[in-house]
Amino acid sequence: MDILESHVAFGGRQEVCRHASSSTGTDMTFSVYVPPHEEGVRLPVVWYLSGLTCSHANVTEKGEYRRACAELGLILVAPDTSPRGNDVPDDPQGSYDLGLGAGFYVDATRSPYAQHYRMWSYIADELPALIEREYPADMQRQSIMGHSMGGHGALTMALRMTGRFRAVSAFSPIVAPSQVPWGQKAFETYIGDDRELWRRHDAVALVEDGARMPDILIDQGDADSFLAEQLKPELFAAACQRAGQPLTLRIQPGYDHSYYFVSTFMADHLNWHADRLCDAP
Amino acid sequence: MDILESHVAFGGRQEVCRHASSSTGTDMTFSVYVPPHEEGVRLPVVWYLSGLTCSHANVTEKGEYRRACAELGLILVAPDTSPRGNDVPDDPQGSYDLGLGAGFYVDATRSPYAQHYRMWSYIADELPALIEREYPADMQRQSIMGHSMGGHGALTMALRMTGRFRAVSAFSPIVAPSQVPWGQKAFETYIGDDRELWRRHDAVALVEDGARMPDILIDQGDADSFLAEQLKPELFAAACQRAGQPLTLRIQPGYDHSYYFVSTFMADHLNWHADRLCDAP
Repeated sequence: MDILESHVAFGGRQEVCRHASSSTGTDMTFSVYVPPHEEGVRLPVVWYLSGLTCSHANVTEKGEYRRACAELGLILVAPDTSPRGNDVPDDPQGSYDLGLGAGFYVDATRSPYAQHYRMWSYIADELPALIEREYPADMQRQSIMGHSMGGHGALTMALRMTGRFRAVSAFSPIVAPSQVPWGQKAFETYIGDDRELWRRHDAVALVEDGARMPDILIDQGDADSFLAEQLKPELFAAACQRAGQPLTLRIQPGYDHSYYFVSTFMADHLNWHADRLCDAP
Repeated sequence: MDILESHVAFGGRQEVCRHASSSTGTDMTFSVYVPPHEEGVRLPVVWYLSGLTCSHANVTEKGEYRRACAELGLILVAPDTSPRGNDVPDDPQGSYDLGLGAGFYVDATRSPYAQHYRMWSYIADELPALIEREYPADMQRQSIMGHSMGGHGALTMALRMTGRFRAVSAFSPIVAPSQVPWGQKAFETYIGDDRELWRRHDAVALVEDGARMPDILIDQGDADSFLAEQLKPELFAAACQRAGQPLTLRIQPGYDHSYYFVSTFMADHLNWHADRLCDAP
């Protein structure tokens, strides 16, 4: 692992790292913030999954998470959203919602994406092992959050990996990819047209099929230009209500889809995670 | 004035605006954050001047000032650091420390820069009039801060415009441009070799020549790669001590020159400004 950047920030350290990933067959870049802490202590870990077009850099620069992480004693890891590099196939049309920056947190099975687009395995298995090895991380205390496509990733990972994450939250997540254009395009391209497979990567379907978390927090701006066509939080609210899955869905008046929205509520989310991570198990 | 972007953030509104500047003879872009406030109230204004290579965007995206501005009721204005556009001459060598992104907060008098590089007039006169007209700004309560080259701008403007600014602070400022390579190169190029003129744009010289503020706050990281050659805060500390100018200079261990440093201490600075802006005059 190479440390590309290392900056003291809010008394802790913000790093940007690159490593050769066996999951994706490429170099992968991620960022990690380690708050100030006593030598020898191991700290809870919050995973932050980013949205379409983003890399680790967007939340690292614009997410405003370091103050709260420093106060609460949380490590925050921000992975990339797809494999990168000259050998990695991109969408031939060059669209922003497929290919580079748009891995959708699945393991692709279809050509030409299957070789490198293995973001589920990368984030579920490979990167946690690296974080545990390289950082003072207590892997018994993990939680996960994300924005937009990354909200989809956070919800599906938390709902499927029972017991892995003590908390999950999302900013303007894609909750029903099987029912919206972004998700349908990605799933058809990466994993084909088997709709039963899609259900394993769809938060609404996972809740319908019995997956559960103790509770879920979602913030959604009502001035988000993707709200009506791509995000549809009402589908998730209805599924959770039918299933008895606790959900706190907050519609935030005037807020859009940008990091001006995410940063506003970041400390709220981190406090909510800390409440579930920092008590005794 | 055109509003290029407008986002709700921390209950207020972050805008990015463009207008035709008579000072620079170009379009100029700036950002302004207006915190949540009651209708009809006018709010104190903090000016934030940015460093070399920056535009309004760096602090707007990475500065982490909105939470504190919202809590304290402060407007924050972030101008650009030079004129921009195809007609604007840049350094023929393309260096980062002269020309575009490097206006050094002076009115240039030398060819080919004199026509457009008039950042002192733009920030001292033209932009405040626009802000007063377009925003709920109380121009009787202004303060100024900046980073690096922008710290130089903030210190020199506060020291020269007696009574304009109730507070001034800086992150890793250029305090003695006449004595360091960045400043010497810029001053020779923009305003020629009359050293008496340089003293009007040099915080150390201004304090030596009798300019005063009630107090000054400076934060400086001790891992800043520009510290020894370009920043030299010890020169300002010595000048302030000789002159009886109150100065709080904090050397922050481990911090570098980046926005990871600026954002860490931004709320500190804004609280310090608010203490001087929000009481009765």
